Amino acid sequence: MGISPTQDRGREGQLRRMTARPANAHQARLLGLLRDGGPNSRAQLGDLVELSRSKLAVEVDRLLETGLIVADGLAASRGGRRSHNIRLAPELRFLGIDIGATSVDVAVTNAELEVLGHLNHPMDVREGPVAVFEQALSMAAKLRAGGLAEGFDGAGIGVPGPVRFPEGVPVAPPIMPGWDGFPVREALSQELGCPVLVDNDVNLMAMGEQHAGVARSVGDFLCVKIGTGIGCGIVVGGQVYRGTTGSAGDIGHIQVDPSGRSCPCGNTGCLEAHFSGAALARDAEEAARSGRSPELAVRLAAAGALGAADVAAAASAGDTASLELIREGGNRVGQVIAGLVSFFNPGLVVIGGGVTGLGHTLLASIRTQVYRQSLPLATGNLPIVLGELGQVAGVTGAARLISDHLFSPA
Amino acid sequence: MGISPTQDRGREGQLRRMTARPANAHQARLLGLLRDGGPNSRAQLGDLVELSRSKLAVEVDRLLETGLIVADGLAASRGGRRSHNIRLAPELRFLGIDIGATSVDVAVTNAELEVLGHLNHPMDVREGPVAVFEQALSMAAKLRAGGLAEGFDGAGIGVPGPVRFPEGVPVAPPIMPGWDGFPVREALSQELGCPVLVDNDVNLMAMGEQHAGVARSVGDFLCVKIGTGIGCGIVVGGQVYRGTTGSAGDIGHIQVDPSGRSCPCGNTGCLEAHFSGAALARDAEEAARSGRSPELAVRLAAAGALGAADVAAAASAGDTASLELIREGGNRVGQVIAGLVSFFNPGLVVIGGGVTGLGHTLLASIRTQVYRQSLPLATGNLPIVLGELGQVAGVTGAARLISDHLFSPA
Repeated sequence: MGISPTQDRGREGQLRRMTARPANAHQARLLGLLRDGGPNSRAQLGDLVELSRSKLAVEVDRLLETGLIVADGLAASRGGRRSHNIRLAPELRFLGIDIGATSVDVAVTNAELEVLGHLNHPMDVREGPVAVFEQALSMAAKLRAGGLAEGFDGAGIGVPGPVRFPEGVPVAPPIMPGWDGFPVREALSQELGCPVLVDNDVNLMAMGEQHAGVARSVGDFLCVKIGTGIGCGIVVGGQVYRGTTGSAGDIGHIQVDPSGRSCPCGNTGCLEAHFSGAALARDAEEAARSGRSPELAVRLAAAGALGAADVAAAASAGDTASLELIREGGNRVGQVIAGLVSFFNPGLVVIGGGVTGLGHTLLASIRTQVYRQSLPLATGNLPIVLGELGQVAGVTGAARLISDHLFSPA
Repeated sequence: MGISPTQDRGREGQLRRMTARPANAHQARLLGLLRDGGPNSRAQLGDLVELSRSKLAVEVDRLLETGLIVADGLAASRGGRRSHNIRLAPELRFLGIDIGATSVDVAVTNAELEVLGHLNHPMDVREGPVAVFEQALSMAAKLRAGGLAEGFDGAGIGVPGPVRFPEGVPVAPPIMPGWDGFPVREALSQELGCPVLVDNDVNLMAMGEQHAGVARSVGDFLCVKIGTGIGCGIVVGGQVYRGTTGSAGDIGHIQVDPSGRSCPCGNTGCLEAHFSGAALARDAEEAARSGRSPELAVRLAAAGALGAADVAAAASAGDTASLELIREGGNRVGQVIAGLVSFFNPGLVVIGGGVTGLGHTLLASIRTQVYRQSLPLATGNLPIVLGELGQVAGVTGAARLISDHLFSPA
């Protein structure tokens, strides 16, 4: 990994901020409010955190000293003396890296987690961590060189498999064998010269949709990502739930049919064997070759391989075999989600990932299955919706992850 | 409901305690420590809650004024001046009521949640709330008359269906139709003259096993109760997770086989249609009548009906049809638990309820299924065990529920 974005940074402000953390819960609360709500007046912030004018002044002064926040002119009058505005330091930059099975997304955000720049590059995760992170860091360097950042104050990284969260190390990831035990957090932290946190890609998607997408203000929800594989982010009381060993949400091998297809994992009838990006590609090629879908056969002849996008396009063109594949897949994943809804009783189910290009046909069959199979008490007010953020859900969640960390007391 | 345990109470101490609640988090912490650890010295409590001697003295004095705690002599010397012991008021009494589908358990505990007396009575929950609570209150009165309590400082109540927790009202409970919307909390609170909380029976079982049973010190676990129906208590970070509408853990209608048995709920292949106390009774009677099990046929002829206990006894006597019923049931429930383990990645799975009389044959087939179907990362260190508390799990959890409430700031 030859890229070191730290080399030409060296600004005093950045170095000071990098070691700065809020000293107490009040300061953490103030940073969170400024991140989620943008610049605000001291007076209004004082109301929100329920601190007296003098106590607020103490905390704000300490935060100003850290360089994490700056003064931002005078606020509009509320009657009486005008209050001073404060905001998060405008030079603060977070890096979000979202490693998928077949592509890498990299984005730079400001302190309010707005995506200032975003790059996507195809990449097979099986090439291993060294190659993948060389790619990701060169994308980060490109964004930096474009003037979006002088350096990074923190980075969040998502990988498509279970992660031992405290250490930031992938554990026995089925689709990325070369990554087992690779010290992602430590290595990237050294390369980038900033704090780094690593999480499962689906957890980051959930956090992204929670921060800026369809799950804003929902406390308990599920975020099901259907890409090459299938995973589920679980949010309980506003916090991602990772489970005892970091594998919570690993729903791809839940059995949907005891007499179903055999799965590479050794069991039969696993969800992923019946529906996922990979299973759909196989089924589409089979439909093309068997003559069931002339539409897919044309596409297969032209491209040599098929994917979810081909099935989506063929379905739009009225291809019945493709429509059937989507419906059948939606039934299978809907069957699993129905069970999870009965068990978890969420306030919202978000569907995301590459396969969501299949759109409303997929969503309709998922909904049908869930509303039919789960109990009315659990589905009565349950929205099942597509994610809003698309490709930037994961990188937004990555920035959220690291900012949550940096904006909480050390 | 003609019984009013408040009538002859009237002790000044009790009335004072009934309105007493800790004023802040320190006091709540002290009450919790005394409940879970028993009497303790001021010095040691001060260390545990990290309060200075003088601040501790203030909080302890305030708690002494409420009557919730009392002085308890001098502690053993730690060198220097001997510290004073304190403890929870020895007259504090909690009532736990656990309504099952076919029986009622009532217990009285002291402040440390030790069961001082426990009664069980067969009762069909379908007789409705008025009849069931008359029964429960007469059992409570009997325990009281036996000298175990002069009155109750709080009561926890479990019902076998989903509950709108804040109001303490059962909602659309499938096996107890007459209970829908019945104001259990309000009605019982008036009858008993003390604060009451109502929860799902499985949540209480989970809290009981957490407080005094096999789940002590486990943060994230599942408690699967297999009785007439099947339900699951979910504990996240030491707290019961109830879901958005209070129906979390309602796993009886998760589909185990798309081409399985038809279920009264209208779907096919629901877990409860394949295995539960009720399904097992039906299958056992069918095995008796069809001649597959002479052992069960003898028992059916003698008793006119069969239950889990008959299957257990027949299996112990070597009856192969009964063993097969248990194994097949264990496979079905194991299949669902395998999915939940993949999804939730718990640190422990507890199996409880009446059907656990089937013992280790059942447990073995559940384990086999879970260890085979869930991913190794989720099952590597996962104990799957029977509950320890048996019939008092629910009532212990009920006492824990109300004491958690009374021992937290109002």
